[in-house]
Amino acid sequence: MFEPRISIITLGVADMARAIAFYRDGLGFPTDITEATADWAIFRTVGTRFALYPKKLLAKDIADDHPQTGTGFGGITLAHNVRTEAEVTEVLAFAESAGGKILKPAQSAEWGGQNGYFADPDGYPWEIAFNPNNIFANDGMIWGGSLGPMPE
Amino acid sequence: MFEPRISIITLGVADMARAIAFYRDGLGFPTDITEATADWAIFRTVGTRFALYPKKLLAKDIADDHPQTGTGFGGITLAHNVRTEAEVTEVLAFAESAGGKILKPAQSAEWGGQNGYFADPDGYPWEIAFNPNNIFANDGMIWGGSLGPMPE
Repeated sequence: MFEPRISIITLGVADMARAIAFYRDGLGFPTDITEATADWAIFRTVGTRFALYPKKLLAKDIADDHPQTGTGFGGITLAHNVRTEAEVTEVLAFAESAGGKILKPAQSAEWGGQNGYFADPDGYPWEIAFNPNNIFANDGMIWGGSLGPMPE
Repeated sequence: MFEPRISIITLGVADMARAIAFYRDGLGFPTDITEATADWAIFRTVGTRFALYPKKLLAKDIADDHPQTGTGFGGITLAHNVRTEAEVTEVLAFAESAGGKILKPAQSAEWGGQNGYFADPDGYPWEIAFNPNNIFANDGMIWGGSLGPMPE
């Protein structure tokens, strides 16, 4: 009835040009969007697609009376898992060079791996994580640990 | 340098037992988590994995001084795209029967399809959308429109 999948994650952003520049030109996410300031941008991320949309319009799409702004922690994190411990530091440095802000430098995590966080230009937190239990499929999606073994 | 993929989306929740019951038992997301109140739950969603974690601990994982709470719109939506227009209404009704709250009933969208929203028990907005431009891969992931055609 409800297939277990998330088709698109959309971030509501304050400045589309800034957000597109960060994700397309900075991080290199693939997209057909060529305008500097599209009013909607979707990226060919593996699996779940990643999209940008003006925050006020996203709120309005949810419901006319939905709050259009918020303060504090929005409550959602996006994690990008990497194959080696060294990549946590490397990918965080790359994100910083693209205009991200380091929230937590790479460090040991109590679950046995290593992680760190950066914020995108709108402040959305991205985790870069190395988990020694992860098994990477060819497409980069993860298995292992409590996800179970990768199917044959 | 930064592979274009999101490994995990984590929702910070107020009550793990309530959230696990909604996603595992209500919506039927597959997981190995069997305890009613695990302190971390990860689901075998297609592509990007979906996870639940106590909101205060998630904030603390980002940084010790990160805000632990927030108000208003967190700014992120998760979309579940469906193959037919009728499914928008059906899946919203199913989510409501599982304990979700309808934020916007199924209706025509200006981009030519139909959508609606429900909130999960913590208030996170999920969009159920039918976009006539979508092309579904076997695994349920979408192509078409500005994502381009599905690869052979």
